[in-house]
Amino acid sequence: MRLMISTTPIITLLTDFGERDGYVGTMKGVIVGIVPHARLIDISHQVDPQDVRQAASILAEAYAYFPAHTVHLVVVDPGVGSDRRPVALKTPGGTFVAPDNGVLTLVRRREPAASACVLNNPDYWLPEPSRTFHGRDIFSPVAAHLASGVPLDELGTPVTDLVELPLAEPVIASGSIRGEVFRIDHFGNILTNITDLRWVDDHTAACYPTGLGSDPGEPVYFDARSARVTCGPHTINGLSQTYSQVSIGQVLSLIGSSGELEISINQGNAQEKLRVGVGDLVTIYFKS
Amino acid sequence: MRLMISTTPIITLLTDFGERDGYVGTMKGVIVGIVPHARLIDISHQVDPQDVRQAASILAEAYAYFPAHTVHLVVVDPGVGSDRRPVALKTPGGTFVAPDNGVLTLVRRREPAASACVLNNPDYWLPEPSRTFHGRDIFSPVAAHLASGVPLDELGTPVTDLVELPLAEPVIASGSIRGEVFRIDHFGNILTNITDLRWVDDHTAACYPTGLGSDPGEPVYFDARSARVTCGPHTINGLSQTYSQVSIGQVLSLIGSSGELEISINQGNAQEKLRVGVGDLVTIYFKS
Amino acid sequence: MRLMISTTPIITLLTDFGERDGYVGTMKGVIVGIVPHARLIDISHQVDPQDVRQAASILAEAYAYFPAHTVHLVVVDPGVGSDRRPVALKTPGGTFVAPDNGVLTLVRRREPAASACVLNNPDYWLPEPSRTFHGRDIFSPVAAHLASGVPLDELGTPVTDLVELPLAEPVIASGSIRGEVFRIDHFGNILTNITDLRWVDDHTAACYPTGLGSDPGEPVYFDARSARVTCGPHTINGLSQTYSQVSIGQVLSLIGSSGELEISINQGNAQEKLRVGVGDLVTIYFKS
Repeated sequence: MRLMISTTPIITLLTDFGERDGYVGTMKGVIVGIVPHARLIDISHQVDPQDVRQAASILAEAYAYFPAHTVHLVVVDPGVGSDRRPVALKTPGGTFVAPDNGVLTLVRRREPAASACVLNNPDYWLPEPSRTFHGRDIFSPVAAHLASGVPLDELGTPVTDLVELPLAEPVIASGSIRGEVFRIDHFGNILTNITDLRWVDDHTAACYPTGLGSDPGEPVYFDARSARVTCGPHTINGLSQTYSQVSIGQVLSLIGSSGELEISINQGNAQEKLRVGVGDLVTIYFKS
Repeated sequence: MRLMISTTPIITLLTDFGERDGYVGTMKGVIVGIVPHARLIDISHQVDPQDVRQAASILAEAYAYFPAHTVHLVVVDPGVGSDRRPVALKTPGGTFVAPDNGVLTLVRRREPAASACVLNNPDYWLPEPSRTFHGRDIFSPVAAHLASGVPLDELGTPVTDLVELPLAEPVIASGSIRGEVFRIDHFGNILTNITDLRWVDDHTAACYPTGLGSDPGEPVYFDARSARVTCGPHTINGLSQTYSQVSIGQVLSLIGSSGELEISINQGNAQEKLRVGVGDLVTIYFKS
Repeated sequence: MRLMISTTPIITLLTDFGERDGYVGTMKGVIVGIVPHARLIDISHQVDPQDVRQAASILAEAYAYFPAHTVHLVVVDPGVGSDRRPVALKTPGGTFVAPDNGVLTLVRRREPAASACVLNNPDYWLPEPSRTFHGRDIFSPVAAHLASGVPLDELGTPVTDLVELPLAEPVIASGSIRGEVFRIDHFGNILTNITDLRWVDDHTAACYPTGLGSDPGEPVYFDARSARVTCGPHTINGLSQTYSQVSIGQVLSLIGSSGELEISINQGNAQEKLRVGVGDLVTIYFKS
């Protein structure tokens, strides 16, 4: 009994479907029809419509907190019905089912030991799939079958040339890293593509200046109090450890919960006040 | 063990409660207090407040993708506390618990072999139900008891005269069907009440021009490339198979994932651009 | 088997994280990694950012409808990373895990027989917790361990001086209660801090005029038809039993589903029309 419980299939769902139309519920109906005892956990259904990059970012932050046998079902699929391929990707950190449009780019950087296939075996689809809702007709049943133990190579043809998103890489110089705004979160926190930062002690931070998720190499240590962050016309002096280290309403920069450089306002909305957008330049200057 | 798992009770929830106030969570608390091992799956809680017709449409698209033993709990209930009746409807395709305000109209058309009862047996309610939250006090406990195996006729008095929504029927002529905008989805896709369309091959589509969910009779075949769709001042030539068949930002019409005529913009929001609303006229012209 | 099922761990989640970023999904990943068979039920993730009072109100309305062995995980945490304490509170009506910022104030009034501890035993946290996402790194793993049976006193040091929210108390006079707007719900219903109202018969209501959740003492009976409610410049005559007792679009006052005085519009949005806000004065006048 214990064993059985400990291997309960888990499927997460990440889409741009919103939560109004019942599209997500329909996908879940398909899944529980195939694997009745699967656990279903929503990552997000409020990805901006067709925003593959945003979905890639949310997925990359979340997946590693799930058990490794989890199947992550990602349907942000502007090319549905075209010749873009539906794929599955199996990695030591989780299994992924998604359209091959780059949404798995960041996961693949973090999980180099992966194998993938094109989902071209219709035995694992719903019969007569529609041309506009592969989330329901192809991706959900495939995720359910994967979660119930069907091996990857049953689902289709092996593939290695998955689509990569063209992501801007941070530019490393001696004493600075120049990156950009990568995502704005629900609180208006400004998340950047300058990642792999961490605290060493209460005043010292470290960065691994080799960009998103790749082998970090040797860290560079710096005094967080004398660091300086610029974002458009704005300058923030020092790196805070917590939001509440500054006064309510004041702008700060800190190391976010996934190790990324983040610009925030204590109990406020930084994006609304600073009016920056995805792609805007952000630079951190430090003395190592 | 297998048997037990395969008959896990499933309850879906569809309301206009939004997701801010904890009303839905409270209903789920009531349910798991009665049937601890039920699976709970949200269809939507973002139906526009009191929009019974919209809820009917979302329900009709979703329910058939769930196992037949699922109990669908629908609480869009502008008449709560009045003399509108709470009802349950049992069909071969699913069991439904809802206020008798027409929200089950489309389900009943698709599931003619159904039996219903008025939920007038307070043994299956919470004690001392409020006058304003029957979702919590009546519908949720009844759905839980149904899912756990209580037979329909225990719950109240049989009834056959359920309320019907007055839904506009498409008007069929030789070579055209005139209908109306039925729902706008999260993407801004414009869904119509012209349904039962399907693809025969890459150029030929078929329609069953007898209206919403009724016996479709003999199909009419037509060349999709020469079809024409009008919606207010807008005309779209040809029926596309997929969104990406036209350029990004271009308006198209296609057969939606539930067989309905749909007007969309590839990677855009058709409703924002075309500024049409529910009830606006839509006509498809075709040569059979 | 039955026994096991009937004691399935239940964890509810209440946050201000929104549902776009995957923060809630990440917390659930952490939980199912620790207690794979827990039931997870969302109360709300749309609390206004940092609005501890609103969260306290939603929690107080919802928790009592869950089985008593439920663990309620509350993360509305403007002071994350500061010296505000993370705490757990065990009561006969449920167990609660939250930052010690007052969010449990209303629960504690309703559950006087409670014990609490500060969560200062890192054995039950994720390793190396971040400074900005204790929901993921401290509160979720603690809630999971509590739900799986770890006793409260394992989690940290006992504590009795939990933070109390400064909540305005209704002012009782002979023949009136003066309170304030406490929360606006999804429908635009105006909920007040005048609580503990109930119907005795179709014309008679009762109030227990001693404020929020405390020992109600002797009720005061009054004729609901001659009661009068004022809210800013607005006056509503009589207390309705249901929304639909007045015409569509008309303002009414009634006893809400949690016993609170509520001002609404039948099938409309009272807040949009009356333009009142949280903290605005509301008075009910009655003849006992």
